[in-house]
Amino acid sequence: MEVRVSLGAEQDGTGIVGVNWGSTNFRAYRMTADGELIEEYSEPAGVSRLDRQGMSNLIDALMQRWNVSGPVYASGMIGSNIGWQAVPYAEAPAGLADVAVAAVPVRIGTAAVLLIPGISCKRAYDGGPDIMRGEEVELFGFSAMQPQWNGLVALPGTHTKWVRFDGGRIIDFFTSMSGELYDRLTAAGLLASIVEGEAEDGPVFLDGVRIGRERKLGLSTLLFGARAHVISGQLERTAAASFIRGLLIGSEIADAQAMHPDLDGALVPLIGNGPLCKLYRSALASIGVDSCPVDSQAACLAGFRALHLVRQR
Amino acid sequence: MEVRVSLGAEQDGTGIVGVNWGSTNFRAYRMTADGELIEEYSEPAGVSRLDRQGMSNLIDALMQRWNVSGPVYASGMIGSNIGWQAVPYAEAPAGLADVAVAAVPVRIGTAAVLLIPGISCKRAYDGGPDIMRGEEVELFGFSAMQPQWNGLVALPGTHTKWVRFDGGRIIDFFTSMSGELYDRLTAAGLLASIVEGEAEDGPVFLDGVRIGRERKLGLSTLLFGARAHVISGQLERTAAASFIRGLLIGSEIADAQAMHPDLDGALVPLIGNGPLCKLYRSALASIGVDSCPVDSQAACLAGFRALHLVRQR
Repeated sequence: MEVRVSLGAEQDGTGIVGVNWGSTNFRAYRMTADGELIEEYSEPAGVSRLDRQGMSNLIDALMQRWNVSGPVYASGMIGSNIGWQAVPYAEAPAGLADVAVAAVPVRIGTAAVLLIPGISCKRAYDGGPDIMRGEEVELFGFSAMQPQWNGLVALPGTHTKWVRFDGGRIIDFFTSMSGELYDRLTAAGLLASIVEGEAEDGPVFLDGVRIGRERKLGLSTLLFGARAHVISGQLERTAAASFIRGLLIGSEIADAQAMHPDLDGALVPLIGNGPLCKLYRSALASIGVDSCPVDSQAACLAGFRALHLVRQR
Repeated sequence: MEVRVSLGAEQDGTGIVGVNWGSTNFRAYRMTADGELIEEYSEPAGVSRLDRQGMSNLIDALMQRWNVSGPVYASGMIGSNIGWQAVPYAEAPAGLADVAVAAVPVRIGTAAVLLIPGISCKRAYDGGPDIMRGEEVELFGFSAMQPQWNGLVALPGTHTKWVRFDGGRIIDFFTSMSGELYDRLTAAGLLASIVEGEAEDGPVFLDGVRIGRERKLGLSTLLFGARAHVISGQLERTAAASFIRGLLIGSEIADAQAMHPDLDGALVPLIGNGPLCKLYRSALASIGVDSCPVDSQAACLAGFRALHLVRQR
């Protein structure tokens, strides 16, 4: 992974173009073959909002804007049945080469595009299936930066992934939709009426983490309990968001501990940005697990570059 | 509880009036002193949609419609801080008499109204607080019908209650917001896109119940798993609702088993109506627990009658 390629061609627009094209957002990066960002472009133009003509137009406009012709590496829901074309998942355990070889070349507008497959797994722990589409770029980017990494990696977000790495390959993973639960339950309905302000780190958040992690009761009961705490005067409305977020992250951590019994004493890289990663970091610290933030854009750029290098061989 | 009172006064409008006045709905019953329904009236006029003038107008219109003057027994969110007046909860353990004595007489419009308090508890099992406001009428109605009842009673609904009864008193309870989770997650967002049709009893539902009950992973992970099951071709879209509902009800049953270790071999009355109770009944049967349906309107009428009898003493 220490290969360095210098095409010397960035100035005339032949660098790498990587696109993370999800359901709701379009994020494109133009970078040197060394993975240095030249320019980026984003638009709330996810595939769920576009038909095929709209996708073509968007790619053509990007190619013109950057004066490039491709290839474009495109990850995310663009490779699903609501995107340009459904690309079958690579099955875990899967490494970078497995994903690169399963990429599907298509033409979108005038551009040659490589649709990167997601990854599916059947978990050893519970036999349950799981899927990702898009996160694999950041994960293999992280792996390119830390090729010796073995252990858990988490990607906190709306649908947080907890991924087991071994020997540069993704072994299996689980996804918690706790971000979506948090967003939707605090936006409307029973819990919205008792929440004032945003979640933040602190004793109330960590109380939630502990209760969620102990799992004496399931989440649907614990979440109602947040309301009961407020109505009975045991929790301030301004602290309710922190408590609820704590319950949800605590429950995820219990899952991570169950799947990965030697988590104690481990270091968990958190790929993501900002305040949410800080909450996960604090929650993990409360059970003695250290974590380190990994910038998600840096991981994404490294992932596209690693894919490009493998495909060039 | 075998007292029979015949006022012979129902014809001139002096029977009992009970109102279940929640956040979103207003449901009123006029009944004989024996608890027989004379007439009922409902309107989607919950307290969250009305100011005090609106509440007055609604009660006055009802009094005129039925040619009665009160007293009116009113339960539910009308006795909360978004209703007419906040009535403090009766603290569990609480029996009918505790609730009756804590009722607060007010005048709404021209009518004398008794605001029935809800019940709060601190659970022995986990020390968590919980609250109910409105369900106590159905619960004491059931208790009036079955005064010897000891054990668990469930009220399946948007926010399902599981209540421990002993000697005619509510000992403690827990609430699962699994109905709200189900409704909202299948209406919009990640899971809505993989759900076609309604939940129904059957092997897929019971698979969900088992997985939810085993609790190898938390609900936010299991719920995302429903999507992974569909996308990976292991679950039909038309069965996804059944699976999701199963996960949620299974998680509740795990909570009930944790709180009530001698649930095995028990009989659980289910106060409610229709298809939802049928799902709970099937889920309980799958772990060898028998249950019996209790009509929720019958329980409600019996509850208002029992409150009336106690207040008359």
